[in-house]
Amino acid sequence: MNYLQIKNALEEVKEKKPLIHCITNYVTANDCANIILALGGIPTMAHFIDEVEEISSKAGALVINIGTLSEWSLDSMILAGKTANKNNVPIVFDPVGIAASSSRRNSAFKILSEVKVSVIRGNMAEMKTLLGINGASKGVDSIEKAEHKEAEEIVKKVAVKFNVSAAMTGEKDYVSDGYRVFTIENGNKIMIKVTGTGCMTTSLIGVFLGATKDSLISALAGVMSMGVAGEKAYENLKEHEGSGTFRMKLIDAIYNMTSDELKERGKIYE
Amino acid sequence: MNYLQIKNALEEVKEKKPLIHCITNYVTANDCANIILALGGIPTMAHFIDEVEEISSKAGALVINIGTLSEWSLDSMILAGKTANKNNVPIVFDPVGIAASSSRRNSAFKILSEVKVSVIRGNMAEMKTLLGINGASKGVDSIEKAEHKEAEEIVKKVAVKFNVSAAMTGEKDYVSDGYRVFTIENGNKIMIKVTGTGCMTTSLIGVFLGATKDSLISALAGVMSMGVAGEKAYENLKEHEGSGTFRMKLIDAIYNMTSDELKERGKIYE
Amino acid sequence: MNYLQIKNALEEVKEKKPLIHCITNYVTANDCANIILALGGIPTMAHFIDEVEEISSKAGALVINIGTLSEWSLDSMILAGKTANKNNVPIVFDPVGIAASSSRRNSAFKILSEVKVSVIRGNMAEMKTLLGINGASKGVDSIEKAEHKEAEEIVKKVAVKFNVSAAMTGEKDYVSDGYRVFTIENGNKIMIKVTGTGCMTTSLIGVFLGATKDSLISALAGVMSMGVAGEKAYENLKEHEGSGTFRMKLIDAIYNMTSDELKERGKIYE
Repeated sequence: MNYLQIKNALEEVKEKKPLIHCITNYVTANDCANIILALGGIPTMAHFIDEVEEISSKAGALVINIGTLSEWSLDSMILAGKTANKNNVPIVFDPVGIAASSSRRNSAFKILSEVKVSVIRGNMAEMKTLLGINGASKGVDSIEKAEHKEAEEIVKKVAVKFNVSAAMTGEKDYVSDGYRVFTIENGNKIMIKVTGTGCMTTSLIGVFLGATKDSLISALAGVMSMGVAGEKAYENLKEHEGSGTFRMKLIDAIYNMTSDELKERGKIYE
Repeated sequence: MNYLQIKNALEEVKEKKPLIHCITNYVTANDCANIILALGGIPTMAHFIDEVEEISSKAGALVINIGTLSEWSLDSMILAGKTANKNNVPIVFDPVGIAASSSRRNSAFKILSEVKVSVIRGNMAEMKTLLGINGASKGVDSIEKAEHKEAEEIVKKVAVKFNVSAAMTGEKDYVSDGYRVFTIENGNKIMIKVTGTGCMTTSLIGVFLGATKDSLISALAGVMSMGVAGEKAYENLKEHEGSGTFRMKLIDAIYNMTSDELKERGKIYE
Repeated sequence: MNYLQIKNALEEVKEKKPLIHCITNYVTANDCANIILALGGIPTMAHFIDEVEEISSKAGALVINIGTLSEWSLDSMILAGKTANKNNVPIVFDPVGIAASSSRRNSAFKILSEVKVSVIRGNMAEMKTLLGINGASKGVDSIEKAEHKEAEEIVKKVAVKFNVSAAMTGEKDYVSDGYRVFTIENGNKIMIKVTGTGCMTTSLIGVFLGATKDSLISALAGVMSMGVAGEKAYENLKEHEGSGTFRMKLIDAIYNMTSDELKERGKIYE
């Protein structure tokens, strides 16, 4: 991997301004729309089953996030996904909370069996659940420490099992296309104190996917952008500021991000 | 048009604190509620069909926004709208995204055929769609450059066709009551990088409508307030800040807005 | 009451990081999740009827907020509530807007008749409605001035009637377990210009409840934390800043809150 492709991906986003169709949760939908705009994409948040076909078919990429699932939303997700598949619109899937809810687990597997996705982004508990490994999980923002080696194996197995690029975010982030495994060491620990940093990372991957159509580059660029933005946002915090202001500065950092900055700050290892 | 009426409108809002019933989308509902409070209104976000009659009948104005439509929400919107009509509660309607979705288009026309609205606020692609003109549209935050003359004609035609005051926002903003056409040149281009600036403008119009019951003055005052707030918020951005912080400062600017400021900064031409 | 228990409650939260299951409204869900994280809890926002049993049964506390009620959400709330009761998971209930909507009123009484809650948090209009007293109400963020003595009586009666700790927030805040009544005089009047300060207070109570399982201490600690955070956030506002920035600084203040600070700034009287 060289940085050139990631730099280029960001430039492609700025130039193409891809339309990103998101079927996502109501908790973080606003942040996801704003971070998509900040990076250079154009978000359309639309979940109504009567319109998802029309919108997905014209999108640059589709983001499916099951963070606040309902009966009706699962059907919409599958219909949008099938439409995206028919129209060669790449999909990034975020299996939010599947480690804590069998209903979400079943929904995730149903989506993955009926829709071909290009990228899956989740935390370690979610990735383990996708592999059928039981792991302790506490809520949707579950953080689990793992040995570096174990993490590398898990992300690679997810990539192989579902034939996707897999992005596993946590203290360190791991990305694999099933052959190679990359470790990304950007970010700041305050990020786990903000809801939706995972959903936002997934949205960023969606924007890169909409511009480049390359699942590995998009997973890497999305994860690295978020990590670098997290570092910058944290550096810009002043006295008395905390997770509330940090959330705004995270979007600021994506808004101001340049491809040179990604190159200078990115810590990616294969 | 003289500024006196717009100044007075803001003062009336501060004095009357109108209750604004919003049936709106979950993406920007929080921003809409906060900007309504910042201006001086009191928001009630309620979409459940069992309660919309009771709430709309007592409101100062009703805001209908189809940004995340569902089957059930259309019925609620129409019931709330009919109730508002019966009780002389003025309505502002925001046809979010109708250029990109035939389902939204049909819903918008259904609402407009069954409910009498006082103000319609949209972007150019949405306004063209209301007139049956095909235009390219990319997502809900669609921006289209148009000749000044064409824009003036479109906003006037929407006003005439639906017997409303029409507010068309974009690089420049246009407002018409079907007779006169006003151009407003406030705002800043960073505003298109924040989701919901359109929805928020519609909400501000709703607050003015709740206080003044005058559709033209409310459309002008709402659009101009948002534009002036956008300029102020942008001026207050510091190094490393971007669209995330801008969104907060936009609400700050509405919170601090005075009628003198509107007069000094407002750029309105007939 | 001495401060020691409230100090300890905050320390217990930091140590135990309780999982808080929220069935809440889409307007303020993001703020609620972020303030739960800021205090030290872990939020799970899940309303889907297929998963609420599984999630509630493992939670440290359950937050039920009827701010944007729907048909389906009432069933989910009751099912989650019954599950919580069976598993000794304490519940805080927020009857948002019941003074303005008979549908919400009926829903609130249905929940309270089928589910045993530990804490109820509301404003004066909502508390009066729970007691069957007619009071004027304007929207969900209703503020009513009352005599100190009347307020003390109301909060005590709610506590007795529903066998809960009751927290009534407004210009001054009142908390009662049915025997004792406490007045808390923290906070700042800008707080009524931000939507969801009530919902956020309820969420904070939920976090304390998840850690301590003590309804009176949790009601006091939640209300006092919010009040102290409001004061700090207001003090940190700069020129040109207003309710938008204040909302971020409120979460910052919760994020940075220490038990010493609560002791120094808390103004609580019995």
